[in-house]
Amino acid sequence: MARIKAQTLKGFRDFLPEDMAIRQKVIDTLREVFESYGYEPLETPSLEYAETLLDKYGEEGDKMVYTFKDKGGRDVGLIYDLTVPASKVLALYSQKINLPFKRYQIQRIWRAEKPQKGRYREVLQCDVDSFGTSSPLADAEIVAIIYDCLKKLNFEKFIIRINSRQVLFKLMSDLGIKQKDKQLSILRTIDKLDKIDPAKVKNELKQKGLTSEKIAKLLSLIKSSQPDSNLKQLFNYLNWFGVDEKFYQFDPTLVRGLDYYTGPVFETHVEKPKIGSITGGGRFDKLIATLGGPNIPGTGTTIGLDRICDVIKEQNLWPEVSPTPTKVLVTIFSPEYLEKSIEITNKLRGSNINTELYLDPEVRLDKQLKYANKKNIPFVIIVGPEEIKKKVITLRDMKAKLQRQLTFKQLLALPTLPTLEVG
Amino acid sequence: MARIKAQTLKGFRDFLPEDMAIRQKVIDTLREVFESYGYEPLETPSLEYAETLLDKYGEEGDKMVYTFKDKGGRDVGLIYDLTVPASKVLALYSQKINLPFKRYQIQRIWRAEKPQKGRYREVLQCDVDSFGTSSPLADAEIVAIIYDCLKKLNFEKFIIRINSRQVLFKLMSDLGIKQKDKQLSILRTIDKLDKIDPAKVKNELKQKGLTSEKIAKLLSLIKSSQPDSNLKQLFNYLNWFGVDEKFYQFDPTLVRGLDYYTGPVFETHVEKPKIGSITGGGRFDKLIATLGGPNIPGTGTTIGLDRICDVIKEQNLWPEVSPTPTKVLVTIFSPEYLEKSIEITNKLRGSNINTELYLDPEVRLDKQLKYANKKNIPFVIIVGPEEIKKKVITLRDMKAKLQRQLTFKQLLALPTLPTLEVG
Repeated sequence: MARIKAQTLKGFRDFLPEDMAIRQKVIDTLREVFESYGYEPLETPSLEYAETLLDKYGEEGDKMVYTFKDKGGRDVGLIYDLTVPASKVLALYSQKINLPFKRYQIQRIWRAEKPQKGRYREVLQCDVDSFGTSSPLADAEIVAIIYDCLKKLNFEKFIIRINSRQVLFKLMSDLGIKQKDKQLSILRTIDKLDKIDPAKVKNELKQKGLTSEKIAKLLSLIKSSQPDSNLKQLFNYLNWFGVDEKFYQFDPTLVRGLDYYTGPVFETHVEKPKIGSITGGGRFDKLIATLGGPNIPGTGTTIGLDRICDVIKEQNLWPEVSPTPTKVLVTIFSPEYLEKSIEITNKLRGSNINTELYLDPEVRLDKQLKYANKKNIPFVIIVGPEEIKKKVITLRDMKAKLQRQLTFKQLLALPTLPTLEVG
Repeated sequence: MARIKAQTLKGFRDFLPEDMAIRQKVIDTLREVFESYGYEPLETPSLEYAETLLDKYGEEGDKMVYTFKDKGGRDVGLIYDLTVPASKVLALYSQKINLPFKRYQIQRIWRAEKPQKGRYREVLQCDVDSFGTSSPLADAEIVAIIYDCLKKLNFEKFIIRINSRQVLFKLMSDLGIKQKDKQLSILRTIDKLDKIDPAKVKNELKQKGLTSEKIAKLLSLIKSSQPDSNLKQLFNYLNWFGVDEKFYQFDPTLVRGLDYYTGPVFETHVEKPKIGSITGGGRFDKLIATLGGPNIPGTGTTIGLDRICDVIKEQNLWPEVSPTPTKVLVTIFSPEYLEKSIEITNKLRGSNINTELYLDPEVRLDKQLKYANKKNIPFVIIVGPEEIKKKVITLRDMKAKLQRQLTFKQLLALPTLPTLEVG
């Protein structure tokens, strides 16, 4: 093995244990909410035939799909989102899957983007969708799930913006823009309204063949448009689901970039930090047929796990989350006391207390204590000659810098270790 | 979007919800055991520079790494295991990471293998390793973790085979085979002893330049070799950790294929089904230095999640695991009763009961009941005109095919729904 220089690819990340604590808790919370709504887990491959992936994400999206030839000469690609793979599953197993099909999916996806703050080339994507019903009840449930997730994650301020592509399509048709391709192309530009200079948006629309007059009319019509009957029903259902009105609003300028949306679209924003949308989704009623499957409607959302973790960290929403799952370090006084340390370790683990045994019997005790401190392990147990003689262990609270001697029975009789007061 | 044919790549798998139930429970159990031993989660990128991955897995392994040029012209590859990425992390963040470093990692890896039973091109790999100590205590702890995991997973019969490469290296040196490259090359062949015809092994060794006499001597020496002092200490520690002797044995023929092992190696087998090893690992004291990092020893194991799931299914070790996390389906009697159904759904979810709301108010009740049956949802709630009048709900046990009317208060006062007796 030749010696090489270790490095991580740009846009990719290593998550050390202290980064994982919040991530893992976010994932567990989302799973819990999804399952409380009767959504079931699904997992699909990371690699798919390139043709399954391409021609779904608009011009710019397609360019960002990681494609290559595999060892068998097949054109393959790393998945770019979870909606297309889930739709593939419905196309492939339509005989076996009962509709409505409610699934969640938490997997890595890849995008060959220019790396920048909040944008990575590898992302843990988290999607929740229902397939097989066109009712706005299904769309409303997705919005209710977003609301519930963010509430359970301790988010205090956020806005779920809601619009419908049907409203936008009708408006363009009324203006004489009836071709589907052209409508989608215009929507992709409109989507940039809250991201780039409006003058640039107008310029792009001009390049797409609209007159200045039509552009002005289109933009003003969009801004003044009202929810259609379908959206009104969706808002009514939100009320029934108990979603607080303070946390969502109708936003006629909301488009969402992807080509496959056909109805309601929704997106969530927080004020701080400035980070873009933390959820995004909508209804996609034609995607499964496009993938060779039956005509099954779908609706759902992506929950931006990375950005959510960023918000939690930057706003310090979870001050109490420990950077390590470990509760106690059992030290080794010296090699001759190792057997006793292992005995205690076994008993603590048997009582469901996450316990690390220091793995080197030759290392001095003070170094072992420093190690516990650096790793933020809250408690340390010491068993040396004095403890053996007195038939006790020494329990040290690393934060309080206090310790006391206890019999093993006393130790296990205590309530959960983290609430222990050491005097 | 052009219409295409949906298909999944050979060697890759879609996991529908009923496949996920056991998988998810296995993952949760393993995480629990790892954390009970003080191991912390780590995650690393799926893509790495090709040079990080290649030249680590022996001739045949290297050929199976998925490599390609990314959009920036970099030679990259999909990770082939989790040991190399974790070693990269230690090389890269050696200033920041406290030793001993005990981490677990559960991620997908990719191998361009010929797909066959039990061999896939995409696998959820599960690794647990400790870095920074050469003590056999660390090796013993890994074996104890394997034992604990399999016990917690309900495995009744398995054997952890244990050997040491030091024993094998010494034995070759004694026979005059002293060059490291040659020793590794010979080990790779010896590793095939329990997989292919012994005559073929002998033939391969001949091609590698050994005389028939030396081959005979080597094989006989291997078979009759004994644990060295380091291995004896490891076995002693296993005893202290409480690992039952029935579940492990010294096996002088065990080699493990990968080039990077330097000391003890271990591998677990079950009798039924015939499926190859379900765990495999060992000590690798030079890998991190090879990756440009400091001289940090390491030891650990992979736990074969896919094969473990196969064993659990084929031996029916978990008969009680429900194929769905959903406990209740709340039906919609007709659109005018939707608000009531949502109200009940909200309350059940608020009481931590996983509750699906049927997502289409226009579908007939009998179809909704059939849906619950097909999805194996154990309970169904019905609220129609009769229930509204009597201020009750109807709770139906789908398995027992019995139902009864309850007030909502009575419903929530019941113990967990699955243990409910419906009369």
